[in-house]
Amino acid sequence: MTIAQTSNSRARVADPGEGIGLDELALATRNHGLPLEALRYDVTPPGLHYVLTHFDIPATDAHSWQLEIGGAVDRPTTLSLADLMRRPAVTSRVLLECAGNGRARFEPRPVSQPWLLEAVGTAEWTGTPLAPLLTEAGLSPDAVDVAFTGADHGVERGVEQDYARGLPVPEALRPEVLLVWGMNGMPLLPQHGAPLRLVVPGWYGMAHVKWLSRIEVLTERFTGYQNATAYRLKVDADDPGEPVTRIRPRALMAPPGWPDFMTRERFLRPGPVSLTGRAWSGRAALTGVEVSTDGGLSWAQADLAPADPAHPYAWRAWTYDWTATTGACELLVRATDELGGQPVEQEWNRQGMANNLVQRVPVTVLP
Amino acid sequence: MTIAQTSNSRARVADPGEGIGLDELALATRNHGLPLEALRYDVTPPGLHYVLTHFDIPATDAHSWQLEIGGAVDRPTTLSLADLMRRPAVTSRVLLECAGNGRARFEPRPVSQPWLLEAVGTAEWTGTPLAPLLTEAGLSPDAVDVAFTGADHGVERGVEQDYARGLPVPEALRPEVLLVWGMNGMPLLPQHGAPLRLVVPGWYGMAHVKWLSRIEVLTERFTGYQNATAYRLKVDADDPGEPVTRIRPRALMAPPGWPDFMTRERFLRPGPVSLTGRAWSGRAALTGVEVSTDGGLSWAQADLAPADPAHPYAWRAWTYDWTATTGACELLVRATDELGGQPVEQEWNRQGMANNLVQRVPVTVLP
Repeated sequence: MTIAQTSNSRARVADPGEGIGLDELALATRNHGLPLEALRYDVTPPGLHYVLTHFDIPATDAHSWQLEIGGAVDRPTTLSLADLMRRPAVTSRVLLECAGNGRARFEPRPVSQPWLLEAVGTAEWTGTPLAPLLTEAGLSPDAVDVAFTGADHGVERGVEQDYARGLPVPEALRPEVLLVWGMNGMPLLPQHGAPLRLVVPGWYGMAHVKWLSRIEVLTERFTGYQNATAYRLKVDADDPGEPVTRIRPRALMAPPGWPDFMTRERFLRPGPVSLTGRAWSGRAALTGVEVSTDGGLSWAQADLAPADPAHPYAWRAWTYDWTATTGACELLVRATDELGGQPVEQEWNRQGMANNLVQRVPVTVLP
Repeated sequence: MTIAQTSNSRARVADPGEGIGLDELALATRNHGLPLEALRYDVTPPGLHYVLTHFDIPATDAHSWQLEIGGAVDRPTTLSLADLMRRPAVTSRVLLECAGNGRARFEPRPVSQPWLLEAVGTAEWTGTPLAPLLTEAGLSPDAVDVAFTGADHGVERGVEQDYARGLPVPEALRPEVLLVWGMNGMPLLPQHGAPLRLVVPGWYGMAHVKWLSRIEVLTERFTGYQNATAYRLKVDADDPGEPVTRIRPRALMAPPGWPDFMTRERFLRPGPVSLTGRAWSGRAALTGVEVSTDGGLSWAQADLAPADPAHPYAWRAWTYDWTATTGACELLVRATDELGGQPVEQEWNRQGMANNLVQRVPVTVLP
C-alpha cells in the first residue's frame, strides 16, 4: 500500500512556544498515566497503569465474544472466550510503555497524545500462548506477518479504520506472546481490552492490540495505517521512516519529597534520602542504572535489583542513597542495556516516538 | 484564620488565547477522568472513575493504619482499620464529581487541574456510617464543624499542609455519610484513598477526604486552606466568596458514533440513533433531562430513568431517540432539578468551581 502524502496524513508539529491545545488536552484527560509515585508498586494497581485508546473504548460482551483466526492458514477457526479459557493458561508480569511516552517534552512538540513521562505500567496478565493456536490453525509456510484487529473504530488522519497492527511471524510465534483475558487476578478491565487482548512482551504498547476480534495470517507485509503511517521513526514528513518495535531502555524515579499542587515542584528536608524507581528495556538486557544529583555533571551507579527469572518481562527496581543538602538541585536517572543507554539531549523525531530522553527532577531542599 | 491576600494565594487566570501550560498538563496526565463512552456502565469500573489528588498518592499500610477521633469530644479514640471493619457495614452507590469539572472550557480559563467534562464517576462504596462513631465519642453540644485530615501532604499557593476539609456538624451526622474501605467489591485502590476515606453523598469530591487519618471536632468554623481559600465561588480575587458544597445538576451524553483520534470530532451514519447518558444533582431531586439536536434552538424531553430507591445517591440514566440526517449539527443535553437547571451560557467564577455549563457535542452525519 502506498500512503498518500496529503497534508491530512502528516502529523502536525507545534509552533515554537505554542501551548498545549484543547485537542491534546482532550486526549490527556481520556488517556491516563501512572503518577510517578506509583512506581513504588511492583505490580501497578488497577487504574494506575497507563492507558492509550486511539478511538473509544468499545462496548463488548464476554459471553458472545468471538475471535476469528483466518488468512493464510489451513484451518480458519472461530473461538469463543470460553474456548480460549479452556486452553493452557499462564500468568506473566509484563512492563508496558507507550511508544509516545515523553512526547510532550520534545521541542518542537509533535501534536498527538501529550505524554510527559507517565505512559508506563507493569501488570500481571493471564491468558494463553498465541503460537500453539497459529500452529493448530496450520500456518502457511509463506506467512510473513500476522495482523491483529481490535473492535475499536475511528478515523485517524483521514483514514477510517478498526485499530489493527501487523507483527512479523517470528515475533508472533515467540512463546511469551499471549492472548489475555485477565489482569492482576481479575477479568480484563474495559479500558485494557476486555474481554481479550494481545500481549507482546518487550514491544511498545501499540503492538498489544486490545478488544482483539480477528487474527489474519498474511503472506506479505501488513500495510495498515498503524504500521505504515502512525508508528514510524522519521524526522522528515516525506521519509517513510523505520517501524517502531521494541522498548528502548529507560529508568524513572519516583520524585522524592512532597509536591506543590500546581507546579509539581518538589520539596524535601536535608539529610539521607533513598531515591527509588524502576528501569527496563524491551530490546536487550539491562546493564545498569546511574543517578546524577548535580544536573548531569557527574553520575554514580544506583543499586539495580537483579533480574528475576520468575519475571523476565517486568521492570526492575533501583535505589540510590543520597544525602540532600539545602539548596536547589536537579536529579537525573538513566538506564543502560547491552545495546546502549538513554540520551541526555533529545533525539527528535517527527511523531515523538520511542523517545527515551533522561528524566530530570528539579528539587528544592529546604533549610 | 485570615487568609493573607498575597499574589501567591491567588489563583491565576490564563490570558486570552493562552494554550494549556505544562503545569496544567502535568495535572491532567496525573489525574484521570472518565472517558465519556464509559457513561454506559451503571457502576464505573476501576480506573475509569475520575481521580483528583492534590499532592502525591501517599504510601499507606492497611495493617498499621490508625484513625484518630479527637477535639471537642468526651472520649477521644484511636481505631484501627480492623476496629472499623467490625462495625456495621453498608454498601452505597454514590455519584462523585469534582468541583472543578468543566474548568478548562471556561473563558478566561482558571489555571488549575484542566478538566473538560470527564471528572465524574459512580462507584459502590463499602464502609461504616460516621454518625454513630461521633456519637459514641461524645460529641460536644458546642460542636460546629468536623475536620477531616488525610495523609497526603504538599504545598498549595504557598501553604504547606496535609489535605484537610471541614464539614458542618449537621452534614457530618447525616446517616449516609460513610467511612469506607471498599470500592466496587474490592479493597479501596491507592488513588481512591486506601485504606480509608470519607464519602459524603451529594457533595462535590473535595469533601470526600482520602487517606483519612484524623477526625477533629471543632467548636468554631474550620478555617483550613481547602475550605477558606481553595474551594470558594468568587469572581474577584479579593472576594472571600461562598463555599463550594453540594453538586449542581448536570447531564452528560456518551458521544454517539465514532471519533477522530486527534480532534475527537464525531462521525455517524444517517438513521435512528439512541442518544444515552447520565444525569444527577446533589442538591435536590432531578425533575428532567432535555436534549437539543439543533445547537440549542429547540429542546425536547429525554426519557429519564425513575429514581431508584435502592440507589438514591447514584446517577440516573437517560435516553433520547434521534433520527440523524446528513450534515453537521450540535447535540446538547441539560438536566433540571427542583432548584433550577444548567446554564447554556457560562457563569464564570475565578477558580472554575461548580461549573455546570451544558455539554455540546458537535457531530458530522455522513451521507
